[in-house]
Amino acid sequence: MASSLLPFFRPRGVVVIGASTSPEKLGYGVARNLIASGYQGAIHFVSQKSGELFERPIYSNLRDVPDPVDLAILIVPTQVTPQTIEDCAKRGIKAAIIVSSGFREVGAQGAALEQQCVDVARKHGVRLLGPNCIGTLDTHLPLDTTFLQPPMPAQGGIGFISHSGAFAAAIIDWARGQGFGFSQIVSLGNQADVNETDVLPEVAKDEHTRVIVLYMESVSDGSRFVQAAREVTKHKPVIALKVGRFEAGQKAAASHTGALAGSEAAFDAAFAKAGVLRADTAEQMFDWARALEVHPRGLDCLRSTTSNKGIAILTNAGGPGVIAADALETNGLLLSQLTESTLKALSSYLPPSASVHNPVDMLASASPEAYATCLKILLQDENVDGVLVILPPPPMYKTEEVADSLTPLIRSSDKPVVIALMGSTLVEEANKVFQRAHIPTYPFPERAASALGALARRANGLQSPQTLQVDNENSKVRRLLSPDNLDELLAAYGIPTTPIKLARDENEAVAIANELGFPVVMKIASPDILHKSDVGGVLLNINDTSFLQSGYAQMIERIQLAKPEARIEGVHLQRQIAEGQEVIIGAVRDPLFGALMMFGSGGIEVEGLKDVAFALAPLNQAEAREMIRKTWAGRKLKGFRSIPPVDEESVTDVLIKLSFLAYEHPEVEEIEINPLRVLSKGVVAVDVRIKSVV
Amino acid sequence: MASSLLPFFRPRGVVVIGASTSPEKLGYGVARNLIASGYQGAIHFVSQKSGELFERPIYSNLRDVPDPVDLAILIVPTQVTPQTIEDCAKRGIKAAIIVSSGFREVGAQGAALEQQCVDVARKHGVRLLGPNCIGTLDTHLPLDTTFLQPPMPAQGGIGFISHSGAFAAAIIDWARGQGFGFSQIVSLGNQADVNETDVLPEVAKDEHTRVIVLYMESVSDGSRFVQAAREVTKHKPVIALKVGRFEAGQKAAASHTGALAGSEAAFDAAFAKAGVLRADTAEQMFDWARALEVHPRGLDCLRSTTSNKGIAILTNAGGPGVIAADALETNGLLLSQLTESTLKALSSYLPPSASVHNPVDMLASASPEAYATCLKILLQDENVDGVLVILPPPPMYKTEEVADSLTPLIRSSDKPVVIALMGSTLVEEANKVFQRAHIPTYPFPERAASALGALARRANGLQSPQTLQVDNENSKVRRLLSPDNLDELLAAYGIPTTPIKLARDENEAVAIANELGFPVVMKIASPDILHKSDVGGVLLNINDTSFLQSGYAQMIERIQLAKPEARIEGVHLQRQIAEGQEVIIGAVRDPLFGALMMFGSGGIEVEGLKDVAFALAPLNQAEAREMIRKTWAGRKLKGFRSIPPVDEESVTDVLIKLSFLAYEHPEVEEIEINPLRVLSKGVVAVDVRIKSVV
Repeated sequence: MASSLLPFFRPRGVVVIGASTSPEKLGYGVARNLIASGYQGAIHFVSQKSGELFERPIYSNLRDVPDPVDLAILIVPTQVTPQTIEDCAKRGIKAAIIVSSGFREVGAQGAALEQQCVDVARKHGVRLLGPNCIGTLDTHLPLDTTFLQPPMPAQGGIGFISHSGAFAAAIIDWARGQGFGFSQIVSLGNQADVNETDVLPEVAKDEHTRVIVLYMESVSDGSRFVQAAREVTKHKPVIALKVGRFEAGQKAAASHTGALAGSEAAFDAAFAKAGVLRADTAEQMFDWARALEVHPRGLDCLRSTTSNKGIAILTNAGGPGVIAADALETNGLLLSQLTESTLKALSSYLPPSASVHNPVDMLASASPEAYATCLKILLQDENVDGVLVILPPPPMYKTEEVADSLTPLIRSSDKPVVIALMGSTLVEEANKVFQRAHIPTYPFPERAASALGALARRANGLQSPQTLQVDNENSKVRRLLSPDNLDELLAAYGIPTTPIKLARDENEAVAIANELGFPVVMKIASPDILHKSDVGGVLLNINDTSFLQSGYAQMIERIQLAKPEARIEGVHLQRQIAEGQEVIIGAVRDPLFGALMMFGSGGIEVEGLKDVAFALAPLNQAEAREMIRKTWAGRKLKGFRSIPPVDEESVTDVLIKLSFLAYEHPEVEEIEINPLRVLSKGVVAVDVRIKSVV
Repeated sequence: MASSLLPFFRPRGVVVIGASTSPEKLGYGVARNLIASGYQGAIHFVSQKSGELFERPIYSNLRDVPDPVDLAILIVPTQVTPQTIEDCAKRGIKAAIIVSSGFREVGAQGAALEQQCVDVARKHGVRLLGPNCIGTLDTHLPLDTTFLQPPMPAQGGIGFISHSGAFAAAIIDWARGQGFGFSQIVSLGNQADVNETDVLPEVAKDEHTRVIVLYMESVSDGSRFVQAAREVTKHKPVIALKVGRFEAGQKAAASHTGALAGSEAAFDAAFAKAGVLRADTAEQMFDWARALEVHPRGLDCLRSTTSNKGIAILTNAGGPGVIAADALETNGLLLSQLTESTLKALSSYLPPSASVHNPVDMLASASPEAYATCLKILLQDENVDGVLVILPPPPMYKTEEVADSLTPLIRSSDKPVVIALMGSTLVEEANKVFQRAHIPTYPFPERAASALGALARRANGLQSPQTLQVDNENSKVRRLLSPDNLDELLAAYGIPTTPIKLARDENEAVAIANELGFPVVMKIASPDILHKSDVGGVLLNINDTSFLQSGYAQMIERIQLAKPEARIEGVHLQRQIAEGQEVIIGAVRDPLFGALMMFGSGGIEVEGLKDVAFALAPLNQAEAREMIRKTWAGRKLKGFRSIPPVDEESVTDVLIKLSFLAYEHPEVEEIEINPLRVLSKGVVAVDVRIKSVV
């Protein structure tokens, strides 16, 4: 079944409604670009005033537009937009780009008008792009529905989806100066109907698109986005720049997990789950995209079995070589340990004062032939996964001569090679040579290294197992359990706990403690006290009856003093588990992406220490292990100094189990095990807190 | 007294020794540049073959060169360099730039030759720049002693000192394309004689130099560098890019401080002490420099007394405005809370759908007049310390028209304004307008925000008190004390300890414990055991004699099993201090910069948790407080949840005292208090470890 979005991307005929003969009007710009783009389908113009534009008739009525026509571009007053959408439907046009602004972004009245557009469109089965967008661009089809100043961007393999039209426009001009091109560009505007998640798979389908960059200010449906992006990234790399990181809003949380998990942690986790690379800056996004365009499956060096494998640096100057080595480390990449035969080959070719060890410094005198010869030697080395070539203007040769000698070699190699082409006027011609050959260049070694880092993370993402072992039969049963019965719920998911018993008075406490066996732990039981240890509501190491009795009396007295308004139900008693390490495991329901898991250093200092990692539920083994690896609390499980190793596997297991609990119970808003006691064998959830929607 | 380096910077006459009439030779390039630069002093050429070059005589003998001449540029074979230096001295030339390579960088033979050059130079009082350097450049004097391809870089206010000639050459060409200039450039090469610390104050003296950038691969004399740079940064900002961050070498350390303190921590601490801003990348260094060139004293917003003050963003598009807001936060800057009168003025000027709250979004239709009017309103707001203007190509106007309308306003304002000029061909003319007016532009909001961040850190650095209260009388006495008597040493510096007593057997232990008073702590006493708790060599909570006796026997047995080779002297006993928080305070002697202080979370997990901060000794109050503020261990001192606040002032005090101990006792290699117990009033050094040079 063809997608309803197809007319946006492959229209057979396009009509500009609101075409204008006045060059300062948007309706003129759109018409001009449509023709100038070289679009091969039918082009029609409609306007209130009939006449002629670019040697074509302007129809005064949409009904008169001949076939074929399946995409309309609307540059009409906001008030008549709903009617125009209806006119489109009647003419058999099922896709419309609304360029005009003045809708939701200007307030309530505009929002109502926008809703009217959506209602009309839904009623008639018309899809809408916009309003308040600059339209679409396809350099290969070709098709240009924007009003941007010509020329069109250069052809390339980067698909670009943007929430901001102004950002897209500025990037198109910037890319022109940088010398790279695009396959498709989609400006989403207000997303009244079509959103980023709808468009992403469509752009991915385009054969010319080798990598997709995504400028996002929000996400329309988080879970659907993760699912869609996850499918796309199996085949093509996606890079996102998500802006609006810092929100002023503080939220009230019932757990440490809730307090620490913000929307940024959720976005990070969502991108990780979807295999989307998240860029920190706009420049970085396109630095990465230009490398991934050439190597969409990345740079397979993180899989290296030996630590000798990595990146080789080839330079004619020591300083930039050191900069590059630093930057590779910063990006998590290793320097190749060159093999003996490589060292020998380099030694016999280069002058004696050159450095044949990585970074390979050929010295300032290096000729174009030297660059080519050494690069060839490095690319043949089995320990070299990729090469970062540093090329400042050579004192004795033209930079473009070096570019000419390197280009065929790089094009014919499977191993990624990126160029730090340092300079400006003296490297201009060389830059053109590399651009024509689709070899990514960067003005500084740091940016070249960052691009290699993105390639490595891309390859790594492709290797991560994406499967989940969902036990459907069990899942169905477990979903029926209520969070109100926490013990039963945890038991169903196989999360080991210590029985907790409520004692309503001192005598009952003694009886229960004798039943559990000393030593026991006593905690205040009150619906009004969340952080028990804050108010002296926790007593450890209770070894005998008399200590228990005095402790009980003192605790009640203390709490009544500290929190006179708190309802006290008695105390909870639990057998004390002495040995082991303590970690925190929690889940919080993110409004966009669903259950967000947290793992890290627990205790009462968790919010200050911030030694925590996040990931979206449900977790697979690789994801759970990664969370553990990311934190000191997790790394410590293997033992450290006098701290003995504990059962890391059981932590992974419980983390996965809790992620299924949170995933399968959307009514659970927050659940937190703090601490999870990790023993030499097994784990015990010592304290579990849950908050669920009534 | 005039500096011996003066002839490098203000020569009255220059001689090129090794001048050549062959255009492919360096000796030709140097002669060409010297003349092309427009240098107003005398220019002389010397070569073995006499003749004529650029209508000037070539002398075959240096003796024949007429006055004035006080700087020589040597492009002669390495073997004859020492002799040539001697010839220079005889001719009365006291400064020589050695361009040639083939010295220390090529091995032992070259190093010997380089030493010969230094010996000759020292003997005759000649100063040497290089060898293996590209010389110096002064765009204002003007003077160009390099062989780089013309033209000279543009005039500007950035002084540039570089350890790498190739890096300098590439940057000069890159700057040409970026449209910014330099005041002076010095390439240091092998630094046989003159090094970065010698040159820094000289470049700072130059009236045209408003900011200094420093590309460093190492430092020649760390302490002298810190001292010199500290003087310079009082008057002019200095930015450093220090490369070679990652060193493979692992060192054996006797303390946690020693294990955690690397040369990078020392460089960070040194730059902080010297008031030098450390850039992460080359591009960042120059992004910052271009802003600091215009505002050398920075952006005084961190002193703001109200939290309403900060940066205003002015944009014609929402997306880039959000990017900018994010980036300002990332750089530690706040968004201004605009005053009521500003909001009113903006509202009455802008269309109703514009956003008058910061970021101020004028919408895509914003005219050049709108940009100017709104910027003027923002600059008048008392809550606005600086403005980030976002300028993508406006759809309806030429970008340069906006630039023209903004330029006079920005030039006449004291408040820093930086421009995110997004695009390429469409903003080219605008970029020239801003460049002519010395207004820094950046291609993306993130880089503009980073530059504002550098301005803020610069202003902040100028405000930090630089004074130290050194008590000279006391200091003299304290210096005489030996680290061998640790108790006496700590007492002299006023660092409170608990008496530790050595018990050589069980009976002695009982007697000592009775004398100290229970509860006591027992620790194994062995010169062979550094990490006592690792081997079960620490026993806490000893409440009575019988526990002490059994504990003693068990500990000795345990240690003998765990470390049969360890010499056991008995146990150390100490009164146990129950309450309070624990931190670590340490000092380690850095080979380059001297005593490096560490503060943070102590205990046995310190190396894993890495919650530590570093600074160079001796510390002043502000520096000590900053170390405390930087770590969770430090922030926790104020209390957190159920953890009561403790005596933060006493921690500051002991940190400063230990810094003086380390500073005044260079023979102390490592000293560490772990833990320092912090009580509700006062602190106690519970365990102190010291390692000193014999």
